[in-house]
Amino acid sequence: MTSLVGIIMGSDSDLSVMKDAAEILREFGIESEVKVLSAHRTPDQAIEYAKNAEANGLKVIIAGAGGAAHLAGVTAGNTVLPVIGVPISTKALRGIDSLLSTAQMPPGIPVATVAINGAKNAGILAVQIIAEGNAEVREKLRAYKKKMEMDVLAKTEKLGEIGYEEYLKQ
Amino acid sequence: MTSLVGIIMGSDSDLSVMKDAAEILREFGIESEVKVLSAHRTPDQAIEYAKNAEANGLKVIIAGAGGAAHLAGVTAGNTVLPVIGVPISTKALRGIDSLLSTAQMPPGIPVATVAINGAKNAGILAVQIIAEGNAEVREKLRAYKKKMEMDVLAKTEKLGEIGYEEYLKQ
Amino acid sequence: MTSLVGIIMGSDSDLSVMKDAAEILREFGIESEVKVLSAHRTPDQAIEYAKNAEANGLKVIIAGAGGAAHLAGVTAGNTVLPVIGVPISTKALRGIDSLLSTAQMPPGIPVATVAINGAKNAGILAVQIIAEGNAEVREKLRAYKKKMEMDVLAKTEKLGEIGYEEYLKQ
Amino acid sequence: MTSLVGIIMGSDSDLSVMKDAAEILREFGIESEVKVLSAHRTPDQAIEYAKNAEANGLKVIIAGAGGAAHLAGVTAGNTVLPVIGVPISTKALRGIDSLLSTAQMPPGIPVATVAINGAKNAGILAVQIIAEGNAEVREKLRAYKKKMEMDVLAKTEKLGEIGYEEYLKQ
Amino acid sequence: MTSLVGIIMGSDSDLSVMKDAAEILREFGIESEVKVLSAHRTPDQAIEYAKNAEANGLKVIIAGAGGAAHLAGVTAGNTVLPVIGVPISTKALRGIDSLLSTAQMPPGIPVATVAINGAKNAGILAVQIIAEGNAEVREKLRAYKKKMEMDVLAKTEKLGEIGYEEYLKQ
Amino acid sequence: MTSLVGIIMGSDSDLSVMKDAAEILREFGIESEVKVLSAHRTPDQAIEYAKNAEANGLKVIIAGAGGAAHLAGVTAGNTVLPVIGVPISTKALRGIDSLLSTAQMPPGIPVATVAINGAKNAGILAVQIIAEGNAEVREKLRAYKKKMEMDVLAKTEKLGEIGYEEYLKQ
Amino acid sequence: MTSLVGIIMGSDSDLSVMKDAAEILREFGIESEVKVLSAHRTPDQAIEYAKNAEANGLKVIIAGAGGAAHLAGVTAGNTVLPVIGVPISTKALRGIDSLLSTAQMPPGIPVATVAINGAKNAGILAVQIIAEGNAEVREKLRAYKKKMEMDVLAKTEKLGEIGYEEYLKQ
Amino acid sequence: MTSLVGIIMGSDSDLSVMKDAAEILREFGIESEVKVLSAHRTPDQAIEYAKNAEANGLKVIIAGAGGAAHLAGVTAGNTVLPVIGVPISTKALRGIDSLLSTAQMPPGIPVATVAINGAKNAGILAVQIIAEGNAEVREKLRAYKKKMEMDVLAKTEKLGEIGYEEYLKQ
Repeated sequence: MTSLVGIIMGSDSDLSVMKDAAEILREFGIESEVKVLSAHRTPDQAIEYAKNAEANGLKVIIAGAGGAAHLAGVTAGNTVLPVIGVPISTKALRGIDSLLSTAQMPPGIPVATVAINGAKNAGILAVQIIAEGNAEVREKLRAYKKKMEMDVLAKTEKLGEIGYEEYLKQ
Repeated sequence: MTSLVGIIMGSDSDLSVMKDAAEILREFGIESEVKVLSAHRTPDQAIEYAKNAEANGLKVIIAGAGGAAHLAGVTAGNTVLPVIGVPISTKALRGIDSLLSTAQMPPGIPVATVAINGAKNAGILAVQIIAEGNAEVREKLRAYKKKMEMDVLAKTEKLGEIGYEEYLKQ
Repeated sequence: MTSLVGIIMGSDSDLSVMKDAAEILREFGIESEVKVLSAHRTPDQAIEYAKNAEANGLKVIIAGAGGAAHLAGVTAGNTVLPVIGVPISTKALRGIDSLLSTAQMPPGIPVATVAINGAKNAGILAVQIIAEGNAEVREKLRAYKKKMEMDVLAKTEKLGEIGYEEYLKQ
Repeated sequence: MTSLVGIIMGSDSDLSVMKDAAEILREFGIESEVKVLSAHRTPDQAIEYAKNAEANGLKVIIAGAGGAAHLAGVTAGNTVLPVIGVPISTKALRGIDSLLSTAQMPPGIPVATVAINGAKNAGILAVQIIAEGNAEVREKLRAYKKKMEMDVLAKTEKLGEIGYEEYLKQ
Repeated sequence: MTSLVGIIMGSDSDLSVMKDAAEILREFGIESEVKVLSAHRTPDQAIEYAKNAEANGLKVIIAGAGGAAHLAGVTAGNTVLPVIGVPISTKALRGIDSLLSTAQMPPGIPVATVAINGAKNAGILAVQIIAEGNAEVREKLRAYKKKMEMDVLAKTEKLGEIGYEEYLKQ
Repeated sequence: MTSLVGIIMGSDSDLSVMKDAAEILREFGIESEVKVLSAHRTPDQAIEYAKNAEANGLKVIIAGAGGAAHLAGVTAGNTVLPVIGVPISTKALRGIDSLLSTAQMPPGIPVATVAINGAKNAGILAVQIIAEGNAEVREKLRAYKKKMEMDVLAKTEKLGEIGYEEYLKQ
Repeated sequence: MTSLVGIIMGSDSDLSVMKDAAEILREFGIESEVKVLSAHRTPDQAIEYAKNAEANGLKVIIAGAGGAAHLAGVTAGNTVLPVIGVPISTKALRGIDSLLSTAQMPPGIPVATVAINGAKNAGILAVQIIAEGNAEVREKLRAYKKKMEMDVLAKTEKLGEIGYEEYLKQ
Repeated sequence: MTSLVGIIMGSDSDLSVMKDAAEILREFGIESEVKVLSAHRTPDQAIEYAKNAEANGLKVIIAGAGGAAHLAGVTAGNTVLPVIGVPISTKALRGIDSLLSTAQMPPGIPVATVAINGAKNAGILAVQIIAEGNAEVREKLRAYKKKMEMDVLAKTEKLGEIGYEEYLKQ
C-alpha cells in the first residue's frame, strides 16, 4: 500500500517528537512513511524526495526540524504539495528559533506551521487535507473530534464528582 | 458559483492584509468569500460560520486576526475542515503576539499557521489543499511555481547585465 | 450554596496550577466551582458556560489556559461578567505565548490578566471584585493584607536576629 | 457627584492613551477622576492616593505606566480595591517591558492587566466590576456588547454587498 | 559599627541569590545589613527604609526582586542615594521580566542595574561607589582586580600544561 | 577645572542620546568631558582612557554603545571606578541587543546599567555617586527630586482644573 | 577577471542592503558577483550555484535573506567553501527571525553569521578570509583598520575642540 | 608544530563547550591552542593575544563567551585575522544575550558568529577558512561532508527497515 503522507525530519533525534505524526495517521488508517533527510547534510536527497513526492503518490509532506529549521521550507520550494512544518524544540532557545525559521516564509512558498513539537497536530492537519476528497476519512475526523469532546466532558464530570483535591491525587 | 474558501478576519482593519488571500485565489480561479467575524465580538456568528462551513461547500477556511488572535483557533474547534491562520501584525508587538496565539495550538486542534501578514501564502496553501483532488488546479500551481522561478531568474539576469548600481536606480 | 466564582481551564493538566485559585477562595469563604472546559475541544460547552454564568449566580469567571490560550478571551466574548485570565506556563516557551494570547485582547472585550501561573492572584482579584458589595469580604481582604505584611516583617526580624547564613540553613 | 473610578498615570505623556478609559467610563455614565501620579517621582502622593481610595468612594483604580511600570503594582500594594494595570507602549521596546512589569506580580498582590495601550478595555473592565452591584450598569454592558456585535455584522454585510475592493476604497 | 550598604529583597526566597552581595561586601570589610522588604507587601516599611537610609548612615542600597520587580525603583523614588537593582531570575520567564522592570526606569530616577542574579556584582559596584571617598577600599579593589586576573592566568597556564582533556577531568 | 565624569560613546551617532548625560551634569554643576572612543575601532585609546581615568581625576565613567555594546564592559575591565552603561537603541532590534550586552556582565566586573537611551539617568546616577562625598551636591539632588515632584503635582493639579480634554489640546 | 566572492540574496528587495558587501569588496579590489537566487523560488539554481562555486573560482559566498532565511544554510549544505550569512531586517519582526534562522545551524554545517543588515561586515569578513593567502590584501586590511581608528580619533578631537552642542549642529 | 587556530574563552566553565572546536580541528589534523582569556578580567592579555596572533602564525581565532559576551568583539578589534564567535548558553537567558552581544557588531569589525554553543561549527568554519590555501584540507572537508551525508542516509535506511518504533527502542 502506498504512503499518502511523507514524514521527514532533519535528524533522528527529532524522531521522539515526530513519531506522534505517524501514530495519529495510523490511528486514522492513513499510510505514512518516515524518513531522516536533512536540508543541510543530505540536500540532494531532500530535494529529490520533494520533487518526486507527487509522482510517488504522496498527498502531504510533514517536515520537522529544529534551530535554523530549513527542511520544511526547502521541501516546499520543490513541490506543489502542501507542506506542514513542525518546529522542533531546541535546547538553548526552546524552539522559538525553529518556529520563526519555519513560519516566516516569503510570499509564494507557504509552510503550514503547527506548534513547537506539535507533530500530532501536523498529523491531524494532514488527515484534514486528505479528507477533502475522502468522505470516510472526514467521518473519522468527526468521530475523533467528538471523542475529544467526550474526553474533556468526562474529566469535568469526574472533577465535579470527586472535587479537585481528590482529582489531583489520582 | 459556490465559494470553496472562506476568508474571515477579526476586524475590517485586517482587510488590507487579508485581501491578498482573496486576490491570489482569484488568480487561481478559485471562488472565495470574505467576511468580518470576530471570535470575541460576534462569537455566535463565528462559530455558526465554522459549523456550517462544510455543509456550505467550503473546503478550507482562512482566518486572520491580530494580538490575542483567537479566530483561527476557535474556528478550528468548530469544523473538521483545514483552517489556515494568518497572524496579523500589531502596532505594539508587531505580530509576535498574533503568531504565538495562532500557532501554539493544543494537541487535537491544528491551525495551519503562515507568516505574520502572510495572507498571500495562506491563499496559496488553500490552493494546494484544493489541488489534492483537482488536477487542473495542480497544473496551475506548477505554472505559478515556474513563473516565480522565471521572475527571479529574469531579475538575476538583468542584475548581471546592468550591474547592481544601475539596478538600484530603476 | 451557590458558586460565586467559576474556575475553568482548558485541560486537566492545568489543575495543579489552577487549584491555587480555588484554595484562596475557600480561604476567604467564597464558594467556587472548578471545571475543565476547552475553547477548542468543547467549544459549545465553554460558550454555554459563559452565557449562563450570570444567570447561574456567578460573579466572576477565572479562566486558565496555556499556549494559544483562547479560553479566557472566548469566555469574555460570551458574558458581561469580569473574566480573569491565568496564562499557564508552557513547556517550550514557558508561558510567554500564554501571556500574550491572554492579555493582548482587542478593544471591547477585556480579560483581566494575572501573572504566568498566577492562579492565586486570580483568586484574590476575584475576592476584591466580590468585595465591592460585601463589607465582610473586604474586611477579610484587609486582614489578609495585614497578615502578608506581618509575615514579611517576621522574616526580616528573624533575618536580623540570626543573620543570613543561619537563615539560609533553615 | 463622587468618582467611582480613579484613573492614574505615571506621566502626562500617557494621557493620550489613558483618556480612552475616561471616555468609555463617561459613555457608561460612571464618574471618574484623572490624575498624574508617579510611583517614582511622587511616591508619597501615589501611596496616599491608594490608601485613601476606598474611603474616598472609589471602587476601582486604573493605573497606566510605561517601561519599568511600577504604578499599578505599588497602588495594588496599598489598597484592597481591584487595581487594573494598563501597560503603556514604549519607544524602544514597544511595551513588552511595560507589560511584563505590570503583569508579573508576586503572589498576594494582583494587578488586573489589560493589553498594551488597552486603556479602553481597562475602562470596560472597571464597568464590569462596578456592574456587580448595579443592574442598570450591567444592562448597559449588555447593550454595549450587542452594539459591538451589530457593528461587526453591519461591516460584514456591507463587505458582502460591495466586495472587498470597494470596501477598501472607502 | 554602622552599615554602609543596605541589602534588601522582596522575598526571603531571593536570599540565596542576594547573599552574594553581603559576602563580597564582607570580603571588602564593608558593613552591610540584610532585610526582606517588599514594595507590595510591606510598602510602608520599604518606603520608610529608603527615606531613612541616608540618615541611618547608608551610602548605597542594593535591592533585589523578581518578576514585576518594583523594589529597586520604589526605593530609588524615596532616596537620593545610589540604588543598585538586582533582577532575580524567575521560574517562568527566567528573569527577563525582572531585568526589564528593574532597568527600564523613567528619566529622573535611575536604578543601577546589574545582570540577572548578579548580586555579587551589585556588591562590587557598591564597593566601587564607597571607594570614591576611601583610598583604602580603592586599594582593595585594585588588589581584587589583580587577583581575578591572576586566577584567570593561572587557569590558562594550567590548561596549557595539562591540555584541555585533562583539565576537564579535574 | 578638572572633569569628574567621563562620557564616552562608541560612535558619534550616539551623541544625540548621550548629550543628555552631559546636560544633566552641567545642570548639577559637575564638570564632564565627552569623547568618542570605540571598543572595536579604537581599542587602544579606549583602554588607555579607562586605565588613566582615576589618575586623571575622574570619579565615574559613563559609556554608551549600541548593538553588541562592549564599550562599558571593556571600560569596566580596565578601571576600578564605577562604570555606568547606557544601552543605545538600535535600528533593527531597538536596543534589546544593547541592553543585554551591557547588563549581562560576568561576576567580578559590574556595569551599572540604565534604561535603553537612558543617558539622563546615567548622568543623575553619576551625580548620586559623586554626592557620596559632597554634601552640596547631595543637597542639589534633594532639590532636584523635590522639583520633579512639584512638576508632577502641578500637572495633576492643572489636569484637575481644566480636565483631560483641554489638557490634551495644549 | 574571475570573481572571488559570490554575493547572493533571496530577493532583489535585499539588494539595497547587500550592495554594501559589493562596495566594500570593490574598495579592497576584490572581484565579486551579485545574484538573486532564492532557496525557495529557484532551489535548483541556488544549489547549482553552491555546488559549482568552488570550480568557478569563488573563495567565499555571502548569502543574504530575511524572515525564514534559508539561503545561507542551503548554500552551506552544498559547498565546502566558507559561507557568510547576512540576516536581512524584516518588516514585522525586524530581523530577529532572520538572525535566528541564519545563525542557529546544526552541527556540521556552519554559517558565519554577521549582524542584521550587516552586509558591509560580511564583505570585510570575506576580505579577511581571502587575506589568509594574500599578503597584499592583508596589508590593505591593516590600512583599513588604521583608517577607522583615525576617523574615530578625528571625531573625538573635533568634539573636544568645538564641544558637543556645536558638534550636534553640524 | 605551530598552532593555526587559537581557541579562547572567557572562563574555564566554557571549556566543556569549547572543547568541541579543538576536537574537530584535531580530527582535521589542524593544530590549535586553547586558552582562557577574559575581555574583562584579563584585558591586557586578551588584547595582546589578538595583536600578536598573526605574528604567532595563527590563521583564525575562535572566541567563546556567554552573557555580555565581549571576547570575540574585542579580539576582532585587535587583529585583521578572521574571528569566529561562539555564543555560550547562559543559565538565565539561555544564550540569547550571548548571541546578540556576539553577532550584532558595528560596521567595520565583523565577528563570524555561529549558533549558541556551536563550537563544533566554529571549528569547521576555521577549517573551511584554512582550506582556502590548502587543497589537502579542502579534500578532507569534502570527505567529511560526504561522511555526514552517508550517516544520515544510513539512519534513514535503518529507519525504513526496522520502523520507527523499533528505531526509538535502540
